[in-house]
Amino acid sequence: MTTVTTAWVAELQDALGADGVLLDPGVTSSYARDQAMLAPAGTPAAVVFPRCTDDVVAVLRTATRHGIPVVPRGAGSGLAGSSNAVDGAITVVMTRMDAVLEVSPADRLAVVQPGVVNKQLRDAVAGAGLFYPPDPSSYDWCTIGGNLSTNSGGLCCVKYGVTTDYVLGLEVVLADGRVLRTGRRTVKGVAGYDLARLFVGSEGTLGIITEATLALRPAPKEPVTLVATFATTAQTGQVVERVVTAGLVPSLLEVMDNTCIRAVDDLLKADLDRSAHALLVAQSDTGGAAAAAEIAVLAGLCREAGAEFVHTTEDQAEGDLLLAARRMALPALERLGSTLIDDVAVPRSRIAAFLDGCDAIAAARGLVIGVVGHAGDGNMHPTVVFDPTDDGQRARAFGAFDDILELGLALGGTITGEHGVGNLKVDWLEREIGPVALDVHRSIKSALDPGGLLNPGKVFRAGTAAGPGFRSR
Amino acid sequence: MTTVTTAWVAELQDALGADGVLLDPGVTSSYARDQAMLAPAGTPAAVVFPRCTDDVVAVLRTATRHGIPVVPRGAGSGLAGSSNAVDGAITVVMTRMDAVLEVSPADRLAVVQPGVVNKQLRDAVAGAGLFYPPDPSSYDWCTIGGNLSTNSGGLCCVKYGVTTDYVLGLEVVLADGRVLRTGRRTVKGVAGYDLARLFVGSEGTLGIITEATLALRPAPKEPVTLVATFATTAQTGQVVERVVTAGLVPSLLEVMDNTCIRAVDDLLKADLDRSAHALLVAQSDTGGAAAAAEIAVLAGLCREAGAEFVHTTEDQAEGDLLLAARRMALPALERLGSTLIDDVAVPRSRIAAFLDGCDAIAAARGLVIGVVGHAGDGNMHPTVVFDPTDDGQRARAFGAFDDILELGLALGGTITGEHGVGNLKVDWLEREIGPVALDVHRSIKSALDPGGLLNPGKVFRAGTAAGPGFRSR
Repeated sequence: MTTVTTAWVAELQDALGADGVLLDPGVTSSYARDQAMLAPAGTPAAVVFPRCTDDVVAVLRTATRHGIPVVPRGAGSGLAGSSNAVDGAITVVMTRMDAVLEVSPADRLAVVQPGVVNKQLRDAVAGAGLFYPPDPSSYDWCTIGGNLSTNSGGLCCVKYGVTTDYVLGLEVVLADGRVLRTGRRTVKGVAGYDLARLFVGSEGTLGIITEATLALRPAPKEPVTLVATFATTAQTGQVVERVVTAGLVPSLLEVMDNTCIRAVDDLLKADLDRSAHALLVAQSDTGGAAAAAEIAVLAGLCREAGAEFVHTTEDQAEGDLLLAARRMALPALERLGSTLIDDVAVPRSRIAAFLDGCDAIAAARGLVIGVVGHAGDGNMHPTVVFDPTDDGQRARAFGAFDDILELGLALGGTITGEHGVGNLKVDWLEREIGPVALDVHRSIKSALDPGGLLNPGKVFRAGTAAGPGFRSR
Repeated sequence: MTTVTTAWVAELQDALGADGVLLDPGVTSSYARDQAMLAPAGTPAAVVFPRCTDDVVAVLRTATRHGIPVVPRGAGSGLAGSSNAVDGAITVVMTRMDAVLEVSPADRLAVVQPGVVNKQLRDAVAGAGLFYPPDPSSYDWCTIGGNLSTNSGGLCCVKYGVTTDYVLGLEVVLADGRVLRTGRRTVKGVAGYDLARLFVGSEGTLGIITEATLALRPAPKEPVTLVATFATTAQTGQVVERVVTAGLVPSLLEVMDNTCIRAVDDLLKADLDRSAHALLVAQSDTGGAAAAAEIAVLAGLCREAGAEFVHTTEDQAEGDLLLAARRMALPALERLGSTLIDDVAVPRSRIAAFLDGCDAIAAARGLVIGVVGHAGDGNMHPTVVFDPTDDGQRARAFGAFDDILELGLALGGTITGEHGVGNLKVDWLEREIGPVALDVHRSIKSALDPGGLLNPGKVFRAGTAAGPGFRSR
């Protein structure tokens, strides 16, 4: 056993240099977890830091040769345990591959390595008047590789879509160390299967992304901002539904429930209406009179729905403050106890039902649940707050987390809108997609990673991809 | 042989009824080809017309049981031979599954069967103030199933993207007859692999799509239209590049070369400037003053580039006429002889180089080549015109078709922007994507269709998916 370990460690050290391979459990343990408290994590056998595609090739060749599993990892900002360590596996930390290789204003694209931080890319293209929209809450420290791996969203999705909508091409190292280049630099292209989008969101189970060609957009105009409060969730839901049916496309449409309003007000002393049942924040970035008109229509919809308070502003500092209140919801809840952040997307017509359902779960479980969400796209983040030292509360919190997923599915939604499945929601994934889709997942996994070495146990369980039809052939 | 034939034919007739199964070669031959003149086509053993998902299941179970290949087909508007018949195969015509099952304004989506004609869907959602953007030239007769199969584009792509950007969920019958439901009704969702987008653009090689859940957009505003003519392709290319770098997003930006201008003028007597080297047509549909302002900026860019003529209009009838001139380019060229329509996408910064390259190819081959294209997204359609009764011209035309693909690749482009690979560009696909990507295609194909029954010979050749790494395991 020791000899075998030495052989593969020596191979890795030869390829990456001694400083590229960490073995000390005291050090490697800090790479064992992401931000998902509920998700299990093992102990890495080694943590490695490739500096280029060839380094990743060397790692995967070694892994394949010795049958050692591999867990790819970015900054560790994930919320589903996607990059949590697996016992005996090599954790491959991609943060040293952090170059923005190209920004092309003429073709409105950028080419980046996976370790580039989301904000670093945003800043790099802003100088050319360009915009990379996907903006997860962790945008100032999460990496593009992680964003690709989980197909991250953010606040902008209601207008600008998610990570996969910006992926033109990828370089991926396959399980056996071969380098796949797929996709293109052109806006359109249908030459063969859309492999790039198969790898996006596959959470490191099909290959390790080493380069991405990303589409950019023109920089948005300065936003006009609206805030409105409501006495009932039904009113809030009505506004979202009317926004959709009226054909409005705000650049942001966020909701906070009463629990979050009070928690944020406690933290920021922001003079929020603590009695409001829900608060909406919206922005339009279409610019000038068009944005003001769009927000005016939205303000009218809020009043029609019976809003208690509606305020709009073209002042950027004030708009930033209103948005900061929304962004502080999670830190504000974290002051109340340990938190479990859920991530359910429901059809937009079911948002009111979902908010009411979360209230009912909180009451039934005797817990605080604060809901913030991307109301404009139906992606809601109920956050269960509990005292981790109280075993009973802890168990009820875990129960509430599951109740919320159950509720999301019952409303025609999905168990994850943007955080991914990781090892946190494997059972739930199977329930959502059903046996045929699960079998197709296993077939594809087995085709690309026959040894099952890439991020095992994440997204779905290993198993023989053998539906009755496949077996009979 | 006769007995075997009878057995599977009887199974199909039992399942679909006698009128759902055509066997007379005089009749089935009319389902043997799409619109791609160059693409080879075989003779179908049978042509069947399923009316529901269960019918498709029955067809694929029979096909799998008897080892008979299957070719899915919509209206036959394709331009790459994707649905061309394969000798001895069952052609499955999806046009009887033509129901719009649901239009939901509150969730801004539609659920359709694959035989729905693109225009039928557009009309069905227009009443609710909604818009299904992808608009291939054949939108008044092509089917959504065919659009999904080839990931169709159209004129709107510069602003609104292509078919895959509108796919939320799919129902697909797999080769063995199992029914896969994948995707969602929500705007966002990352539960598992993005299987829906793997099937989109796979040209019927991985399964038969029997239902699609499609995202819609708010109806666009009435457009403002611009037309401009230029003495050089360099000027035209400069305008496109300046549009991109200036952050303009017109809803349409089309180019026609001198050959097309003259052909359209001959056909429509439209008083076009027959000496112009290129003509641009653009629209903005952002509405009112914003659209007028956007088009005014574009007009300024045209003048800066040295346009000979610039005209803008808010009159819808005049705008429609200008657009009609662009839409008539292909019919106008078809009056000059037989045509081979190519489909290359290049990075937007290379459009002028591409137009000049096509001129050089026309001169070198001694042929007429007219170029129309979606300048805004770099997807160009050079059309080679030739006399089919002249063997020498015919051979030179085929040569020119290949020269154009070569040129596209040399400029960093792709061999197909929106028409697909079909059986027309199989060799070219292999060249574009390279051996690793080809092997990944074969692995995935083999995982989902181990018998190789679905649309064999399309997109890429069958072959053992066995890269060195895969083999060594």
